[in-house]
Amino acid sequence: MSFVRTDGRAADELRSLKITPGYLPYAEGSVLIQMEQTRVICSASIEDRVPPFLRNTGQGWVTAEYAMLPRSTQQRVQRETGRGGPSGRTHEIQRLIGRSLRAVTDMKILGERTITLDCDEIQRLIGRSLRAVTDMKILGERTITLDCDVLQADGGTRTAAITGSYVALALASRRLSKAGRIPWSLVANQVAAISVGIVDNAALLDLKYDEDSRAEVDMNVICTGDGRFIEVQGTAERQPYTREQMDKLLDLATKGIEHLVGIQRETLARANHG
Amino acid sequence: MSFVRTDGRAADELRSLKITPGYLPYAEGSVLIQMEQTRVICSASIEDRVPPFLRNTGQGWVTAEYAMLPRSTQQRVQRETGRGGPSGRTHEIQRLIGRSLRAVTDMKILGERTITLDCDEIQRLIGRSLRAVTDMKILGERTITLDCDVLQADGGTRTAAITGSYVALALASRRLSKAGRIPWSLVANQVAAISVGIVDNAALLDLKYDEDSRAEVDMNVICTGDGRFIEVQGTAERQPYTREQMDKLLDLATKGIEHLVGIQRETLARANHG
Amino acid sequence: MSFVRTDGRAADELRSLKITPGYLPYAEGSVLIQMEQTRVICSASIEDRVPPFLRNTGQGWVTAEYAMLPRSTQQRVQRETGRGGPSGRTHEIQRLIGRSLRAVTDMKILGERTITLDCDEIQRLIGRSLRAVTDMKILGERTITLDCDVLQADGGTRTAAITGSYVALALASRRLSKAGRIPWSLVANQVAAISVGIVDNAALLDLKYDEDSRAEVDMNVICTGDGRFIEVQGTAERQPYTREQMDKLLDLATKGIEHLVGIQRETLARANHG
Amino acid sequence: MSFVRTDGRAADELRSLKITPGYLPYAEGSVLIQMEQTRVICSASIEDRVPPFLRNTGQGWVTAEYAMLPRSTQQRVQRETGRGGPSGRTHEIQRLIGRSLRAVTDMKILGERTITLDCDEIQRLIGRSLRAVTDMKILGERTITLDCDVLQADGGTRTAAITGSYVALALASRRLSKAGRIPWSLVANQVAAISVGIVDNAALLDLKYDEDSRAEVDMNVICTGDGRFIEVQGTAERQPYTREQMDKLLDLATKGIEHLVGIQRETLARANHG
Amino acid sequence: MSFVRTDGRAADELRSLKITPGYLPYAEGSVLIQMEQTRVICSASIEDRVPPFLRNTGQGWVTAEYAMLPRSTQQRVQRETGRGGPSGRTHEIQRLIGRSLRAVTDMKILGERTITLDCDEIQRLIGRSLRAVTDMKILGERTITLDCDVLQADGGTRTAAITGSYVALALASRRLSKAGRIPWSLVANQVAAISVGIVDNAALLDLKYDEDSRAEVDMNVICTGDGRFIEVQGTAERQPYTREQMDKLLDLATKGIEHLVGIQRETLARANHG
Amino acid sequence: MSFVRTDGRAADELRSLKITPGYLPYAEGSVLIQMEQTRVICSASIEDRVPPFLRNTGQGWVTAEYAMLPRSTQQRVQRETGRGGPSGRTHEIQRLIGRSLRAVTDMKILGERTITLDCDEIQRLIGRSLRAVTDMKILGERTITLDCDVLQADGGTRTAAITGSYVALALASRRLSKAGRIPWSLVANQVAAISVGIVDNAALLDLKYDEDSRAEVDMNVICTGDGRFIEVQGTAERQPYTREQMDKLLDLATKGIEHLVGIQRETLARANHG
Repeated sequence: MSFVRTDGRAADELRSLKITPGYLPYAEGSVLIQMEQTRVICSASIEDRVPPFLRNTGQGWVTAEYAMLPRSTQQRVQRETGRGGPSGRTHEIQRLIGRSLRAVTDMKILGERTITLDCDEIQRLIGRSLRAVTDMKILGERTITLDCDVLQADGGTRTAAITGSYVALALASRRLSKAGRIPWSLVANQVAAISVGIVDNAALLDLKYDEDSRAEVDMNVICTGDGRFIEVQGTAERQPYTREQMDKLLDLATKGIEHLVGIQRETLARANHG
Repeated sequence: MSFVRTDGRAADELRSLKITPGYLPYAEGSVLIQMEQTRVICSASIEDRVPPFLRNTGQGWVTAEYAMLPRSTQQRVQRETGRGGPSGRTHEIQRLIGRSLRAVTDMKILGERTITLDCDEIQRLIGRSLRAVTDMKILGERTITLDCDVLQADGGTRTAAITGSYVALALASRRLSKAGRIPWSLVANQVAAISVGIVDNAALLDLKYDEDSRAEVDMNVICTGDGRFIEVQGTAERQPYTREQMDKLLDLATKGIEHLVGIQRETLARANHG
Repeated sequence: MSFVRTDGRAADELRSLKITPGYLPYAEGSVLIQMEQTRVICSASIEDRVPPFLRNTGQGWVTAEYAMLPRSTQQRVQRETGRGGPSGRTHEIQRLIGRSLRAVTDMKILGERTITLDCDEIQRLIGRSLRAVTDMKILGERTITLDCDVLQADGGTRTAAITGSYVALALASRRLSKAGRIPWSLVANQVAAISVGIVDNAALLDLKYDEDSRAEVDMNVICTGDGRFIEVQGTAERQPYTREQMDKLLDLATKGIEHLVGIQRETLARANHG
Repeated sequence: MSFVRTDGRAADELRSLKITPGYLPYAEGSVLIQMEQTRVICSASIEDRVPPFLRNTGQGWVTAEYAMLPRSTQQRVQRETGRGGPSGRTHEIQRLIGRSLRAVTDMKILGERTITLDCDEIQRLIGRSLRAVTDMKILGERTITLDCDVLQADGGTRTAAITGSYVALALASRRLSKAGRIPWSLVANQVAAISVGIVDNAALLDLKYDEDSRAEVDMNVICTGDGRFIEVQGTAERQPYTREQMDKLLDLATKGIEHLVGIQRETLARANHG
Repeated sequence: MSFVRTDGRAADELRSLKITPGYLPYAEGSVLIQMEQTRVICSASIEDRVPPFLRNTGQGWVTAEYAMLPRSTQQRVQRETGRGGPSGRTHEIQRLIGRSLRAVTDMKILGERTITLDCDEIQRLIGRSLRAVTDMKILGERTITLDCDVLQADGGTRTAAITGSYVALALASRRLSKAGRIPWSLVANQVAAISVGIVDNAALLDLKYDEDSRAEVDMNVICTGDGRFIEVQGTAERQPYTREQMDKLLDLATKGIEHLVGIQRETLARANHG
Repeated sequence: MSFVRTDGRAADELRSLKITPGYLPYAEGSVLIQMEQTRVICSASIEDRVPPFLRNTGQGWVTAEYAMLPRSTQQRVQRETGRGGPSGRTHEIQRLIGRSLRAVTDMKILGERTITLDCDEIQRLIGRSLRAVTDMKILGERTITLDCDVLQADGGTRTAAITGSYVALALASRRLSKAGRIPWSLVANQVAAISVGIVDNAALLDLKYDEDSRAEVDMNVICTGDGRFIEVQGTAERQPYTREQMDKLLDLATKGIEHLVGIQRETLARANHG
């Protein structure tokens, strides 16, 4: 294919990835995950309490919070609370986007960008993905909070947050296990996530911001370590997509996930011996 | 297949559907959409203003609000604002769900139900879907608000809201056109939505609440009138799903959408002559 | 009198009234009350809890929530929460009113219209009226919430909400009683409400919106089934009123209430045999 | 009648009343109004702006804010904002009341006390009453805010606030007039308010807190200087009331208002020469 | 020194001070403190509850709330809640200040004025100061709330609030002690506060608003009865200050505090015999 | 002196300090400042707008936001918004502190710890300090926002934030200057900050958390590059302090500031050549 990506990657090539374990020493588990210009801190905090609906069930809970540093983006965005409160950032971003959109000719499918930065939706996605691989009975009546704080954003922050959170969660599980507080690992499976999309009619793996912002179709795929789907969210940003295109995107995503899963394993193995 | 649905439908059979146009006479376009026990009022309101980021662009905007009447459900839920404010209902629902979940043995993938009722996420989904088929230049600097108010909920309220909103939008377009305020229809394509899912390993079309609440996989599919995808959201509620299962669900959804699109057309034709 | 009403009614004539019981099947009691273009859904929901100040008193509580569908009015109004939160709708309405008022010559007594749509005040009025006829000891430590949702508004929504809520409450009482959860009816008396007012110096019964919006005096009267007053709220909208005028308005209201009380009885008798 | 009031007053006797003009020297007009243990500061502030809906109409606006000092009551109550925000005080008061109500045998008509302290409703009542006697065209595009701050509360704070606010408004009008900013007085009529009620079957004028808290019927009456009604709000607190009782209460109120109007005139005359 | 203050006071002279005990009769302790045009009501309310973190510790808590009447200032300011909620007043004040600042040539150190009126910061300062002299074990599991409501503001309201609150607290302690609810006084030491500052290079004691608003340096000093510091807050408003200047300001403050402490003692002695 | 610090430092010795410039590449100026276990990211963002009160004055504005990552502390704390909204974190911290305080015998001066983490107060302090050294006329009608995000907290985060923000501001100034958007540096002076305190009767420089949490007196000192004071805030945490102790603390702080100022200069020189 003659399509050329701005950073010279092949259509099915991931950005270089680095996961640094133990980045926030006070947390039970933590990493800094870097996919070139995208940098996210993920930490797992364990507390001996559960939400009211789980009291006296013997089971635990996993939740997530996601936030961006105001200057993680090209233009400063307002801070937003983890939960509740008017969503100042979303509005601010709408404003910035509106400005650039005025130059764009076709606006038929608009506003998706405003949605991709909604923190509530992102943190529910992260929480749900990590709950899918956690054994709540092993965890017992504890809550694990995964805090994902974006230092720098160049596309793919939510999928990086999920991929990094898995490692933070596994590190926290290991610490609980070593301390004899859980009988064996509470992590029942691996989980990793990646974005794929269609840009100028080409299906691409791992979109950077410049690609993501002009994609016709944007899809986030979250899989277990053995390649089954936990979540697929595919959105037509500029034009509807066919079944054939969907199949192509799922193929690309599956390939990318395999690679991420491998790096997660290496990081955990290295951290074990470090 | 030996699987039997509680209402005796075949796995690939929709509930009976009825769309009543003109249900709220003050609105520019409105319908009552009924899928048996699921009843949603959809109205389209046109205002001569646009959000700040669209001023002086000559283009319009489509947005949606979604709410449930407190007694649309088996147990009363708290009211929630359309936008902003602490999301009282979500919490209330979490509480109700927790109660029933205590009896459930395997909670590994939990909390999805709390998400399915988040109004913010639903109204963004509705807005995005309807924007995908609206020609914003024809609309001009006007905003169309689609209000979706659930009278009674028995599964599939968000997809019914999208399917009904399309008809309300088309009726409003027709009124604008007749009044000479737009040159031709602002609706560039049809849009309809349906839920599919996996229950007891069987892929089913159009899930009622009793099916949805114990589904292993839950998927919402939104398509244009010619069968291309606008949005696919597939979530593993109880266990991850394979590529093969995904293909089956997409087949079912495509079939259901075809039927809905036909009923939308008939309703609009009838309303034209009524 | 030579005064002619826009719909041809006599000064002391009610609009035609229809009460449909069982409109929301999940609720313990519910009706759709229609006074021509004014349509309100009233439901009674029973929960086995009371507010903190009634715990361990053996007595129950009755409360109300009132909301309008955004497109129940000629121009769309913003949604508002049942309780708490900035009262978006009131402000929006102030704006709409201001526009039309600019043409009006005398503004001495202004702003009453903004008040008539304040949901908090209305729902307290509904709750208070229904509590006045409920035997809290028979109810026991339960809370009944009366949800009044306006589908379409053409004047008199708050009084229709009270009149309809009484029937919903009586239906819920009957259901509790049949289930053996209360010894006999918890409804100690009937309650109905109607608006009266002075328009162009004429005292009128049951004001529609076009009358209400230019009334000199606006009065809401709530009575028991035997014609005693539970609440009288008379407000000078454009000019103060004399004692003689007040007497005339109370006479009209009493007459209207008698009629409403009869229709409530018929509806309940019919529902019993239905 | 053999009924004896706790302070020995006759049934138709007002508490002694004192109005001190100029209590807050920075305000355009201000008074301290004292009805024995009830003390309220009323101030009128003039600003050269109007709400958006009045811009370019040449007319002004009058609004009110009402608040209680936390220790104006026997038990401390929480502070509340003038507008917006969760109504903390109302809830706190509900709690206090609940406690004392547990000893009460008949609770059929309950919760009215919680309403009498709702600041939003009270400040709308004050604003409306004062607007009724203000000539908005003379005022021009200015806003007058009436701040009513209760130092000590022993029943009748809202009616005292209206009676006092009239004097503050008249003083502010005089100041504007002297400064040549308005051609003549913007106050078109006097306004005063008083509470009446039925306690132990006796109709009483000017209820103190101990009477108000056990009243069967509670009524606030607001009149112009010439005795016509601006607002009548009569609420059955414990049992419905007859037309005959209503007539008696209105007679009492009219008598009380006459007295208040006289004291307002004297205060203004004295302030003029002081 | 040739510097002349607008009210003719010497640089080290306090305004005349008057403390009226028992100003709010329902409160356990209360005063009206007047420093000429600055008037603040301080009340101490005792409740038999403590914040969650003190339950079952046998110790009590002291907290403060500070608010200004809207018309305590030359231009009306918006009301603000005691806690939580958007801080409306601060913004309003910023606006007023901005207007006057436009005429000012040098704005290098700006915005301090906006801070001096932040209620949250002030009430924490008051609470902290009074806690410093309260014996929490003698108090037992009770909370004392000090409400400071500014009737009129001419500089120094926060220091007047502290000086007055001490007397209110001591009066409340005395009442508890007389009632046999505490063994001896819970007030372990006196506390008083004063402002000092540098205006036109002159160090001044007890700044009025006209001095405070153009001060180069503004300092609040809070001391115990024996002259030790509880809090020193010195802020450069227009230019940084030297160590020598700081020493001078502390000398002045110490002198002022001595005088205040004497008046507090006299007030308490007088109240004892009154 | 026989007093031994937990990390072996002398009483007048700073922790080792490292300032990394350019840590957030999208920001106009940024640093990571590390004082051993205390790590803060400071960024300066420039926007071409000013608050309303500065429009058309030709002058700029400097503001600050301060936040902690939830897992910057030993126990996870809740996120908090930069401005507005209920201050969740403060409450959470109060709770944690309460727990440990139960073991403490003397609680006379309590609650200061809850204050030291109030973000609003801290960000106003940072903003004020940086405004004190910025020439607003050189800046022109632009706003600089200093975002201080704490990665890890071990005492002294607010003073580190000020010291680091100065460098970020100077880097942003340099960038503006190089781009020809300002004629020369907008930074008129240096600013640095340090904490001092009294622990076990010993005056110490640069308190770590374990020292700060048991300090008798806690003082933050902010100075210009030439050693004059911008702000001094000294609070008695456990017992009042004498004038002599205050003098000693100011001496220590002055010495520490001198060292910080030197490191700031070196960092800027290095960044210039880098």
